[in-house]
Amino acid sequence: MPANVVTAEALQERLSANPFNKWMGMEIQDLTEDELVVTIKWREEMVSNPKAKYTHGGILGSMIDTVADFAIAAKVGMPVPTVDLRIDYHRAAAPGDLRCVARVIKLGGTNSVAEGFVYDSDDKLIASGRGTYFTAAAKPKE
Amino acid sequence: MPANVVTAEALQERLSANPFNKWMGMEIQDLTEDELVVTIKWREEMVSNPKAKYTHGGILGSMIDTVADFAIAAKVGMPVPTVDLRIDYHRAAAPGDLRCVARVIKLGGTNSVAEGFVYDSDDKLIASGRGTYFTAAAKPKE
Amino acid sequence: MPANVVTAEALQERLSANPFNKWMGMEIQDLTEDELVVTIKWREEMVSNPKAKYTHGGILGSMIDTVADFAIAAKVGMPVPTVDLRIDYHRAAAPGDLRCVARVIKLGGTNSVAEGFVYDSDDKLIASGRGTYFTAAAKPKE
Amino acid sequence: MPANVVTAEALQERLSANPFNKWMGMEIQDLTEDELVVTIKWREEMVSNPKAKYTHGGILGSMIDTVADFAIAAKVGMPVPTVDLRIDYHRAAAPGDLRCVARVIKLGGTNSVAEGFVYDSDDKLIASGRGTYFTAAAKPKE
Repeated sequence: MPANVVTAEALQERLSANPFNKWMGMEIQDLTEDELVVTIKWREEMVSNPKAKYTHGGILGSMIDTVADFAIAAKVGMPVPTVDLRIDYHRAAAPGDLRCVARVIKLGGTNSVAEGFVYDSDDKLIASGRGTYFTAAAKPKE
Repeated sequence: MPANVVTAEALQERLSANPFNKWMGMEIQDLTEDELVVTIKWREEMVSNPKAKYTHGGILGSMIDTVADFAIAAKVGMPVPTVDLRIDYHRAAAPGDLRCVARVIKLGGTNSVAEGFVYDSDDKLIASGRGTYFTAAAKPKE
Repeated sequence: MPANVVTAEALQERLSANPFNKWMGMEIQDLTEDELVVTIKWREEMVSNPKAKYTHGGILGSMIDTVADFAIAAKVGMPVPTVDLRIDYHRAAAPGDLRCVARVIKLGGTNSVAEGFVYDSDDKLIASGRGTYFTAAAKPKE
Repeated sequence: MPANVVTAEALQERLSANPFNKWMGMEIQDLTEDELVVTIKWREEMVSNPKAKYTHGGILGSMIDTVADFAIAAKVGMPVPTVDLRIDYHRAAAPGDLRCVARVIKLGGTNSVAEGFVYDSDDKLIASGRGTYFTAAAKPKE
């Protein structure tokens, strides 16, 4: 796996310039050569089931899509278009901030694959998944 | 495929009781035995790329997940937990309201599969996908 | 959707030149502008569960992958690499020939998405799924 | 993660009793608490592209489905039905035996998720993916 070419600070700036990511309160907690850790700030509008107050699966999917994409961005310089995404839901998420850990599975010149795992504040695995990202879009135009 | 057991009005009530779906402005436009059509109301916070103002993929995924689930809800009486979800992104979505058409592929006693297609205001296909839903959760406890 | 550029005969020739597809006994039953229908010939080695003699899920996945790819091939002139694939298993397949119906969902210059549905001889839906295919590989090199 | 309840020998016996797995020449190379490693024996009928002789994607998918399922079987006592499967294809597989490493991501009472990674003889990652498995089927009937 090639080395990161973007700092956590620059990645955070890019992340926060994205209105929906900003709305979710995404904050980079850690960036190493192997993984990117991002938290979101729970908000009432993220709720799905109004009684149980579980977090909407779409928020979990958005986290995995974004953090996996930014794990790739750390390697190729910028976030790239998602080709497709698969999310597995393992457990309902009670109200509270969530943490997503993402890793690159395969970095390719055309497409790359990265995965993400969402944990609640008790470190329980809530959801996980993987996406295909069009890394060719990050190449400088000739 | 069995007949619907819920009216569009009752389904809309359930949809709007869900805070994140309400935040997305989900409105049922049509419910037939074959499909459920739901629109969302575009809002600035849904944007991903700040320059191009494309709608965030997580919003497209949330639409497909929710509308596919509610297409099943029309048949089994209530929305049920998503087991997993796959989304294919076909084209970037310019700012504007979006429409999702969902259909049940297979209705089963344990799991069901439904699909959704998201279109922009020019009727261009933006994203599509399918999810597995745990329909056993809708069965009355004995 | 553009018109087919390959005949059923030429497509069959290409299909049968592929050893694994030939081993599965794939035969094109119908090719229209909208769908491709291919059957496989059941064989003892395709069995998974030795008692119930259910057909192995890998065979069902192979059918969907191949027939969806060839539905695209009919439009772009040749089968192209599969980027990724999702298969939903709806019901166990008893011994017997199977039929797969495939359709193109989105034809794109870089990637395309197609879906397939596998039916048993009683017309029951056994499995279904969709794949992303790298259609850029079919473009003539400049 | 709970401890394994099946030995590698018993798992191999079950694997070889499955005609399609036997046809693929599946052999358990290693079973630990964390992962299951299985090889297949390349055969001419596994070829897809007749010129390049790449291994058919359906074979790669069959490996991931089966080895992920058997990684779960080691924990729950028997292979269980696949609910759905996603495969990402990273690189074409030249003729030669392949190795699949599988791990359980989430073990649940109803559904479980496991992943698999296929490597060629040069240890290059060829394909990877994850499936959802219906572990409730392994529970003793009351």
